[in-house]
Amino acid sequence: MDVVEFKPEREQYAWTFGGVEPVMRVAPGTALRLWTEDAFSGRLTSPHDLPSEHLDMSEVNPQTGPFYVEGAQPGDTLALHFVDLEPARDWGASATIPFFGALTGTDRTALLHDPLPERTWIYQLDRDRDVVVFEALRGEFRVDLPVAPMLGTVGVAPAGREVRTSIVPDTFGGNMDTPEMRAGATCFLGVNVEGALFSVGDGHYRQGEGESCGTAVEGAMNVTLIVELIKGGAPAWPRIEQDSHYVVVGSSRPLEDAWRASQVGMIDWLHELYGLDRLDAYQLLTQVSESPLANVVDANYSAVTKVAKRFLPPGEAFGGMHRYLREQAAAL
Amino acid sequence: MDVVEFKPEREQYAWTFGGVEPVMRVAPGTALRLWTEDAFSGRLTSPHDLPSEHLDMSEVNPQTGPFYVEGAQPGDTLALHFVDLEPARDWGASATIPFFGALTGTDRTALLHDPLPERTWIYQLDRDRDVVVFEALRGEFRVDLPVAPMLGTVGVAPAGREVRTSIVPDTFGGNMDTPEMRAGATCFLGVNVEGALFSVGDGHYRQGEGESCGTAVEGAMNVTLIVELIKGGAPAWPRIEQDSHYVVVGSSRPLEDAWRASQVGMIDWLHELYGLDRLDAYQLLTQVSESPLANVVDANYSAVTKVAKRFLPPGEAFGGMHRYLREQAAAL
Amino acid sequence: MDVVEFKPEREQYAWTFGGVEPVMRVAPGTALRLWTEDAFSGRLTSPHDLPSEHLDMSEVNPQTGPFYVEGAQPGDTLALHFVDLEPARDWGASATIPFFGALTGTDRTALLHDPLPERTWIYQLDRDRDVVVFEALRGEFRVDLPVAPMLGTVGVAPAGREVRTSIVPDTFGGNMDTPEMRAGATCFLGVNVEGALFSVGDGHYRQGEGESCGTAVEGAMNVTLIVELIKGGAPAWPRIEQDSHYVVVGSSRPLEDAWRASQVGMIDWLHELYGLDRLDAYQLLTQVSESPLANVVDANYSAVTKVAKRFLPPGEAFGGMHRYLREQAAAL
Amino acid sequence: MDVVEFKPEREQYAWTFGGVEPVMRVAPGTALRLWTEDAFSGRLTSPHDLPSEHLDMSEVNPQTGPFYVEGAQPGDTLALHFVDLEPARDWGASATIPFFGALTGTDRTALLHDPLPERTWIYQLDRDRDVVVFEALRGEFRVDLPVAPMLGTVGVAPAGREVRTSIVPDTFGGNMDTPEMRAGATCFLGVNVEGALFSVGDGHYRQGEGESCGTAVEGAMNVTLIVELIKGGAPAWPRIEQDSHYVVVGSSRPLEDAWRASQVGMIDWLHELYGLDRLDAYQLLTQVSESPLANVVDANYSAVTKVAKRFLPPGEAFGGMHRYLREQAAAL
Repeated sequence: MDVVEFKPEREQYAWTFGGVEPVMRVAPGTALRLWTEDAFSGRLTSPHDLPSEHLDMSEVNPQTGPFYVEGAQPGDTLALHFVDLEPARDWGASATIPFFGALTGTDRTALLHDPLPERTWIYQLDRDRDVVVFEALRGEFRVDLPVAPMLGTVGVAPAGREVRTSIVPDTFGGNMDTPEMRAGATCFLGVNVEGALFSVGDGHYRQGEGESCGTAVEGAMNVTLIVELIKGGAPAWPRIEQDSHYVVVGSSRPLEDAWRASQVGMIDWLHELYGLDRLDAYQLLTQVSESPLANVVDANYSAVTKVAKRFLPPGEAFGGMHRYLREQAAAL
Repeated sequence: MDVVEFKPEREQYAWTFGGVEPVMRVAPGTALRLWTEDAFSGRLTSPHDLPSEHLDMSEVNPQTGPFYVEGAQPGDTLALHFVDLEPARDWGASATIPFFGALTGTDRTALLHDPLPERTWIYQLDRDRDVVVFEALRGEFRVDLPVAPMLGTVGVAPAGREVRTSIVPDTFGGNMDTPEMRAGATCFLGVNVEGALFSVGDGHYRQGEGESCGTAVEGAMNVTLIVELIKGGAPAWPRIEQDSHYVVVGSSRPLEDAWRASQVGMIDWLHELYGLDRLDAYQLLTQVSESPLANVVDANYSAVTKVAKRFLPPGEAFGGMHRYLREQAAAL
Repeated sequence: MDVVEFKPEREQYAWTFGGVEPVMRVAPGTALRLWTEDAFSGRLTSPHDLPSEHLDMSEVNPQTGPFYVEGAQPGDTLALHFVDLEPARDWGASATIPFFGALTGTDRTALLHDPLPERTWIYQLDRDRDVVVFEALRGEFRVDLPVAPMLGTVGVAPAGREVRTSIVPDTFGGNMDTPEMRAGATCFLGVNVEGALFSVGDGHYRQGEGESCGTAVEGAMNVTLIVELIKGGAPAWPRIEQDSHYVVVGSSRPLEDAWRASQVGMIDWLHELYGLDRLDAYQLLTQVSESPLANVVDANYSAVTKVAKRFLPPGEAFGGMHRYLREQAAAL
Repeated sequence: MDVVEFKPEREQYAWTFGGVEPVMRVAPGTALRLWTEDAFSGRLTSPHDLPSEHLDMSEVNPQTGPFYVEGAQPGDTLALHFVDLEPARDWGASATIPFFGALTGTDRTALLHDPLPERTWIYQLDRDRDVVVFEALRGEFRVDLPVAPMLGTVGVAPAGREVRTSIVPDTFGGNMDTPEMRAGATCFLGVNVEGALFSVGDGHYRQGEGESCGTAVEGAMNVTLIVELIKGGAPAWPRIEQDSHYVVVGSSRPLEDAWRASQVGMIDWLHELYGLDRLDAYQLLTQVSESPLANVVDANYSAVTKVAKRFLPPGEAFGGMHRYLREQAAAL
């Protein structure tokens, strides 16, 4: 299998899903070794870097891509298998940004409060112990947190002629910010435009569910993935297959609507996999669903529905694509 | 340690939090062995039992209790340690109830649709294999699901002179429907009235996160718990301590508000445990929170924030009450 | 027609809907001349009275009542016709209360902000010009606002054995805080318990739609109303009939659900009045609905759907009760 | 004053805000006489035209424009004064569209219901009596409704490099669907890109507040407007000035957030107009706000905050632009 390497120059970053010329054409079956800049475009490097002074909010979540997938047509399904996610720096950054986050008034939840104080935390990465170190800014508190690399942002060009910023999650994927998007996972996205035009970015060295303050341990990432294409079969919402789980991500507001979308998406998937009647699938899901939140901060909130495969008979999602890609990845 | 046994007669069930005379006075330090009827008051026993014909919606979630805890005053903290939850029958039931559930119009999300079809599923319990069996009503699909007993409803009398039905979760606990409420967990509830007046009920042999259709594998339960009282320290929202995790449950609508309440509750708890500055706690939580949904169906939705103790320095929540109760439980 | 006068002593105030013994039994057809204390229980009398120092949040929205209506049974419809609402003092008060209001974090929309500054505004009532005077606390700004008396709180005892504080609006009415509840209006409430047990309170000398800061121009009120009873016909949500409009009030969270409830309630009403097919009623309502918000601050938000009678053929709601009560009122 | 006429050919319709080449350059001060096609692109002409058969959901809300306004720079304020809105046909259409509307499950509020029945209503326009005629599809019910022409969609190109479909309302205006956008009103929109690139469309012969079923009395419209430009001063959310009212439109989900945005926008405006302290403005708004809903159906919901000028001292919004444009209009 060919492995194509690509590290974008700063002027090659994409800031949107859709509306950008592809950086490259790739054939289905191609492996890509990519580099992604962090969500802050690398502008926060010390606890003294205040977001309001150092960040350019029109340049966050830089995307590596988009990639034009040969043969991809609207209605097809793009499969992206994440072979490896490797922190590309020895530190990550997180910050409270004025009027951004889940526990503050925002431009959408418009209130009369002054912004919360802005702060920047730098996490040192210890590769030997595979941890990042949280150090409180006030007081002596310090703990190690396991590294758990993931990609915040994986998406294709939207439908309906739209172009969306890379801060937004929706049916096209985008800034879903779910820890489920990790090495070993295959992400399935419906194709909306010719060539699919997918991009990735916003690596997190780790993130809690919900991403409360709005920024994870943000860090540049080396990403190895394999691109595949399935003709037809486009799911309504992004799906992820892991060795252990089926996962659907819904994104909307209010949060119950994001979760409902992921639940109905999973009911549809169980129907496809096993021919289950929708009410039977609803009942089964009621008893087996895992429902970890993804983010409650972005323009849309993202919620996850997961079902453990150990509860289910063997299934062949998308013709066994995930298993096939696992084998391909092992051969890299 | 004394163990007091109590199995209510049908006419002793409580249907509300608050507004009911206690069935018993108990001293802090008492162990109780209780029996709880299922959420349907035992009225659904076969797939032919339709909710609209067999259920009395004014008699769901029967409570065992309330118990008057001697010495409990408003502002105190009630600790309930669940020693054991044991299915009291060899089957459980679940159902779709007209205009009830997360993926249907309801009295609150009022729409113009006809109700979804009503159906009843009966789950046989296999004690040898420790599973309940899901059988599709349409087609041949059948899977085993591990038994994972929990209590849907644990609460005290509300504040503000209120009386709430046992379907409602709120600051007083109540129908939180979270799988976190399992054997080995200690639940901390703020006391609102003299004697606390707690009750328990709504046993689930298992439940998925979110409880999509509105009813888990509902079953009668034998509940062993130890009652303790902490003077003062009442938390704003219910807290749970497990050997592995700290847990806060928030209940409100929309779902983001339920989750926000649980997040702020956890930030407060981290502040109490470690003296962490609130912004530092916000940052730390952003990277370590687990955020599994509890229910998206009740009068209020319930969302959970969990933090794994392995990420944290040793802490002494409520003066080490959970560890103490674990020891007491081991000695039973 | 008899007119019964009643002014409660301070110790007679009710603080809840349900759970309180009636202050009086009244026969249908009785006129009542009542006095209601303001929402602050009269504790804010000067701009120097800070809510955190002067208010007792467990004693807000004192109710005059409850009244036991002879013959009222669950499923019946209580009709309260407001003959006259007359400010009982020469001033009203409003305030920003910490963590209360629509444009601040609250106990439900839990955020990490400090509370907004608390302030108290006193409005002088000028009876000659029929205005209250708004005076800015900072700067010289001062404007006259027309007096527009209304009752924030009109309700009956809830269903399901519940007792709710007088801050809450729901299906039983309660703290709906809608300017539609004014002299000349007839309010129809479903009866949940024997005797209905209605009460009124929370007079506003005027209020904007949404009641942003959470408190209107709060003032003691002289209330003249006529009580009537309709056997059966209980509406799902409170209805109001005015000479000019039919009005339905829904209360829930998020706000779209409050509004949906009011819309479906109006579609039901149009169906009852004219035999309109529900989809035809949905279509008609789409083109004629007035949808002014009531409050976006209480435990539930309240939204209003109104339809102008001038768009409709003559109708006989509740057997012409409103017209009948207008005639009775004229004869008082 | 010059009046430029423009009626787009079908292939000239724009389907998005942003991402489209301008149809024309106009200098500030220009009057335009435009024709806009209806929201259905003219495809529903009889009650027998079912949306699922006749509508192309990728071609709804065709826009007339965009127009490049000479000199407009990001941060400037575009003023569009609507001189006249005149129905361009003698009939309008409305429909229930599967999974679209406020009282049905949708792609966002994903539920398991089948869609509501789809229906199309045709309204005949009677120019002599200035009414459209509602005729029930089931039964004989028929009423006249006053014509009240408005534009559902008025917007500029979005910020952040985005392109949004003409179904979406947001900070850039767009599909706000508020009856406030009528002849005699001036709409103020912040400019995000050079030339502003505004467009208009989606004429309604009348619409209720909330637009429950998702479609008003949709009709082609002759639109006369005057374009002006104010350097700087871009408001965060669309503002409208009428002779009688100041109006702010917020668009988000859940509905309380849409309304909060409009409220904070109005508080900012009152601060700008009168130097009012923000808490004083919050208090004043609490007592004078009118809060009619706009739509509860689109990708974002839209809510309105209005303040009657009769409650306020004389003010000069945007340097008196509205009064100036009224004079210009009178001279046309």
